[in-house]
Amino acid sequence: MSDKLKIGILGASGYTGADLIRLLSCHPHADIQLLTANAHAGKPLASVYPHLGGLDLPDLLKAEDADWAELDVVFCGLPHGTSQEIIAKIPKLVVVIDLSADFRLRDMDTYAQWYGHEHQAPELQSDAVYGLTEFYRQELKQARLIACPGCYPTAALLLLLPLVKAGLIQSDDIVIDAKSGVTGAGRSVKEQNLFSEVADGLHPYGIASHRHAPEIEQELSAALGNETIVSFTPHLIPMNRGELLTTYVRLNKDVSVADLRTQLQDRYENEPFVRVVPDGMVPATRHVRGSNYCLLGVYEDRVPGRAILVSTLDNLVKGSSGQAVQNMNVRFGFDETLGLTQAPMFP
Amino acid sequence: MSDKLKIGILGASGYTGADLIRLLSCHPHADIQLLTANAHAGKPLASVYPHLGGLDLPDLLKAEDADWAELDVVFCGLPHGTSQEIIAKIPKLVVVIDLSADFRLRDMDTYAQWYGHEHQAPELQSDAVYGLTEFYRQELKQARLIACPGCYPTAALLLLLPLVKAGLIQSDDIVIDAKSGVTGAGRSVKEQNLFSEVADGLHPYGIASHRHAPEIEQELSAALGNETIVSFTPHLIPMNRGELLTTYVRLNKDVSVADLRTQLQDRYENEPFVRVVPDGMVPATRHVRGSNYCLLGVYEDRVPGRAILVSTLDNLVKGSSGQAVQNMNVRFGFDETLGLTQAPMFP
Amino acid sequence: MSDKLKIGILGASGYTGADLIRLLSCHPHADIQLLTANAHAGKPLASVYPHLGGLDLPDLLKAEDADWAELDVVFCGLPHGTSQEIIAKIPKLVVVIDLSADFRLRDMDTYAQWYGHEHQAPELQSDAVYGLTEFYRQELKQARLIACPGCYPTAALLLLLPLVKAGLIQSDDIVIDAKSGVTGAGRSVKEQNLFSEVADGLHPYGIASHRHAPEIEQELSAALGNETIVSFTPHLIPMNRGELLTTYVRLNKDVSVADLRTQLQDRYENEPFVRVVPDGMVPATRHVRGSNYCLLGVYEDRVPGRAILVSTLDNLVKGSSGQAVQNMNVRFGFDETLGLTQAPMFP
Amino acid sequence: MSDKLKIGILGASGYTGADLIRLLSCHPHADIQLLTANAHAGKPLASVYPHLGGLDLPDLLKAEDADWAELDVVFCGLPHGTSQEIIAKIPKLVVVIDLSADFRLRDMDTYAQWYGHEHQAPELQSDAVYGLTEFYRQELKQARLIACPGCYPTAALLLLLPLVKAGLIQSDDIVIDAKSGVTGAGRSVKEQNLFSEVADGLHPYGIASHRHAPEIEQELSAALGNETIVSFTPHLIPMNRGELLTTYVRLNKDVSVADLRTQLQDRYENEPFVRVVPDGMVPATRHVRGSNYCLLGVYEDRVPGRAILVSTLDNLVKGSSGQAVQNMNVRFGFDETLGLTQAPMFP
Repeated sequence: MSDKLKIGILGASGYTGADLIRLLSCHPHADIQLLTANAHAGKPLASVYPHLGGLDLPDLLKAEDADWAELDVVFCGLPHGTSQEIIAKIPKLVVVIDLSADFRLRDMDTYAQWYGHEHQAPELQSDAVYGLTEFYRQELKQARLIACPGCYPTAALLLLLPLVKAGLIQSDDIVIDAKSGVTGAGRSVKEQNLFSEVADGLHPYGIASHRHAPEIEQELSAALGNETIVSFTPHLIPMNRGELLTTYVRLNKDVSVADLRTQLQDRYENEPFVRVVPDGMVPATRHVRGSNYCLLGVYEDRVPGRAILVSTLDNLVKGSSGQAVQNMNVRFGFDETLGLTQAPMFP
Repeated sequence: MSDKLKIGILGASGYTGADLIRLLSCHPHADIQLLTANAHAGKPLASVYPHLGGLDLPDLLKAEDADWAELDVVFCGLPHGTSQEIIAKIPKLVVVIDLSADFRLRDMDTYAQWYGHEHQAPELQSDAVYGLTEFYRQELKQARLIACPGCYPTAALLLLLPLVKAGLIQSDDIVIDAKSGVTGAGRSVKEQNLFSEVADGLHPYGIASHRHAPEIEQELSAALGNETIVSFTPHLIPMNRGELLTTYVRLNKDVSVADLRTQLQDRYENEPFVRVVPDGMVPATRHVRGSNYCLLGVYEDRVPGRAILVSTLDNLVKGSSGQAVQNMNVRFGFDETLGLTQAPMFP
Repeated sequence: MSDKLKIGILGASGYTGADLIRLLSCHPHADIQLLTANAHAGKPLASVYPHLGGLDLPDLLKAEDADWAELDVVFCGLPHGTSQEIIAKIPKLVVVIDLSADFRLRDMDTYAQWYGHEHQAPELQSDAVYGLTEFYRQELKQARLIACPGCYPTAALLLLLPLVKAGLIQSDDIVIDAKSGVTGAGRSVKEQNLFSEVADGLHPYGIASHRHAPEIEQELSAALGNETIVSFTPHLIPMNRGELLTTYVRLNKDVSVADLRTQLQDRYENEPFVRVVPDGMVPATRHVRGSNYCLLGVYEDRVPGRAILVSTLDNLVKGSSGQAVQNMNVRFGFDETLGLTQAPMFP
Repeated sequence: MSDKLKIGILGASGYTGADLIRLLSCHPHADIQLLTANAHAGKPLASVYPHLGGLDLPDLLKAEDADWAELDVVFCGLPHGTSQEIIAKIPKLVVVIDLSADFRLRDMDTYAQWYGHEHQAPELQSDAVYGLTEFYRQELKQARLIACPGCYPTAALLLLLPLVKAGLIQSDDIVIDAKSGVTGAGRSVKEQNLFSEVADGLHPYGIASHRHAPEIEQELSAALGNETIVSFTPHLIPMNRGELLTTYVRLNKDVSVADLRTQLQDRYENEPFVRVVPDGMVPATRHVRGSNYCLLGVYEDRVPGRAILVSTLDNLVKGSSGQAVQNMNVRFGFDETLGLTQAPMFP
């Protein structure tokens, strides 16, 4: 028996699909056997991603032509809302790692409210494990369906969960100002994502209405044991990859900024991919570009009782495909860093 | 007698110098007679700014070789800390419009604390008028020394002053998350501003220590009648010009987000350069690129009692050279929009 | 009678439309009375171009709802191939300035070959004057239909026409390596123009098959009196505006590189918008950004008998909307520089 | 005995140093024991390259404090002109792989002419092997000093050497129009490399005077057996990494463009890092970003008897650090692809 997992990737023509392939091509236990991309079925992958032309990979198929039974694990990089029905058809023996938003929200009403339609596979939702690796490792080891977190929630929760769990900050006064590169919008062909619309400029979007807010709130609320609302505003930055969150919090009584720092350092001391930057350093998206790292920074505000927190990651790696591979490693008992040890690329 | 002002520009080789020249070259009452740039003295301006090679302008001089008596007005675009001594030597009959930070802070102790040295011309400070045009118009009409605001304070104060004056928001709970293009750092030759250090990435800087914070606080405190501290964190964005502030505020009791919007609309109804964007629109830096406009947006937060405010301007125009020309227009009784009517450039 | 021309702009939602409006808003004799954009009919211009929200302009209409009889001049910024039929319906009293490619090629077979369909208004073609202002000024004064050149042909012909006319270079050995910003592709929504596809990279396109090649050849051949073919390869550069051509030529016998330089300097000595850069300087796109200038540079190659020539312009201004306004000025007897005197914007 | 090479990197604070570290950190036989950076001696590497903070590496030293005897191989990423003296002091038992230009030119007069000073270690020059791996593999196996080619020469020679050797193109009519990202200028702090000077624009530089021209000519001349001059003009593109050369050639009699293509395909059939792109595809810098690949494309020109050739590589990888690691692999008998199998990163 082979020591390689037989892997399928749905939605291989998207950016998360491409980055999955990039990462898995260095993974010693990965054997990509299926790639789907309905609009490009029949073509070689290199026709949609010439940069991957040096790899030996199967041609693109329609999802409906996939032979699921041959596979050990399927990564699903389809647009939100379209994964549910397809995943429902995949045999239960195949592990599914979903990069879309379809199974992230545990409450079906919340899902319907934010995604604009009833969920098509609520029975699967109860099986889904939220794939924030550092916080759901035990559950992931047995998971059949893994719902990888959104890129913003990953950066927000790795920062905030240890602090709210330890009761260090006021959970009703959290302001998250998020900034993301353009790949966060995927490869969808929209005027607003054209080079000339985005380059050399900056703007907020989804003000008080971005779908990642309820996802952040779901996990914070679960950690706290009561409902929490956060202020969350993302911005589109003229860069390819990377996102950075600047989070403004109010300390609980008798808590110092140093306490926040210590808490995060202790929590992530043995984690391979999460790091608190040294005192005097400031995280930047380019420090994690192309890698699975998440960097955290903690700073004293001049306003008494407040702290300024920074978290950054590559939205396509730790915020998506990298965390998905990390979850695969956990699920199948591999060393968690396999395929993910490439250093960040700068410049 | 000519209807043209005889104008000198100190520090013509900086970016604010270049943009002053660009704007004044379209001003019907401007006659640039002096350009200084100590490191380039003796050269034509086109040798440091080829894009201005089509204009008929004097060669660059050393500041010490300037003949001040010939001039009506001097724009000073020198680095912070170096303007004080030079301005002290300019005859009192010449109006000085300073784009540096040297005369923005009225309190000399605050200046010394934030700029790291004692002020060299405190006697001039008392003459200086803070050049936030829309709020100091009367004082500007008689000013001999105009201290143009920093780029961030301009964007922050045009947004916040009407709201705090009207008592609509809580002045002790203001979080300003600022983003700026790289020209905000000037043309100084530092590793951190190299293309390959900045491009395709993003990071915060000057966390809780940026010099524009006390400037914002000075004006808010004066408006309120008591001391105020704001949380202010700037970020460096890979774009040339433009800055955008996302400001998180808490409403006072019985105040609605609509009240904020109405207040700003009323305040700026007759202002040529400040505009509240229509409902449903979101300000972007590219909407003001190259122009003297400042755009404001007001949004309801999902967190009860909070609002999200956005302001944007071109840091080199309304945030610097454009506002300086606007102040010149006010000071000399011209139509305030002269030289400033160019539409923004997009893309 | 008003001293203002009543102006219509077809295709106001494209980038050339936006730049026409930007330039005409500073023109003392321009009164924009009609804006069409079929996909956005009924909306205010600011909904598609927020940066122009400060101007007082009519709402967008469908082209079929235009009242042509009210207008003096119509600028046509529609996609190639769609202008012909619409222009055919405009009353002959209205001057038409076409920014599309529809009337640039005088030979209808060449048109059909390169644009893939028979021309729909060949009878109009004979009336069309090629709008390369510096070379067709006399014809433009009486023109009813002006076919503005493509952006690449403008940069190529301003450089090459004086040299081939004077017999200084070998016309059968011209290699043009062209580089353009992304606005050259217009605002059409295609995957290849997405930010993430274009940013931080570079590639050639249309190798030996770009439609601007026959246009360049048409004018060079006419100047020479015999058929000429050029090698022309454009490249897409991750920047908004600007294009630069590096042209490699072989000198005729007894001709020096200095002769080329002198020829160009003499030819353009009295032209307001074309300039040979000083010795030792090199043209860059940013030297002309946002302006109607074209800069030319002439350099000795190390290969004996060869020269390296550089020309640059802003593809949306001198390469499109600016040249169109310049042609309007010529046609209606205004000072040729009206509306076009803004200095370039750098950075 | 360890199966790991003890490696030193001189000039670790430059971009080639950083990319060497990035690549070697994935190499199974690499053990980095020495990093020098004179201006930063005593600091951890993460203080100059935070993105490498996750690696376990020695602190930065001054070059003069290095203990060479401990090392098997030294990579030298120092600025041109400074490597010679330092390399002269390294014990002969240590293999030196030089990424600077100091040992690329075999003729000392040519060196002095182009680099402006007499060579300081001419006796070493005769030992140096030119590190264009695909053409000097045999010599590299015994080399003590490897002079890695310049980035432009690598892209030019991989394309042209097979064609001139086979006599397919006219060697006296080669025009190379080169485009490079800004990292090609290194991390040196110069005004011309500031973000705001480079972004959103493009310009040629080093016209007919770039030092890579004699290097290209040296190798072409050696292959041909007689002196050859090429026309070579580089351009600075607003992107971090990557370079692309568009080369215009004239075919020899009875040679077709298909012959060129076949020749290149045959030559590189078994090479792991050089690939002729499929018919109908066009190389782009983003297809090789971060990787050691070089892509080649061959196209028919419309001008009879001419062809348009395209080559692209990542200037920091195949154009510098990657090729250096490839040479190390050859020199020490490892599989040539070790440490170099990462797929390109797009977007």
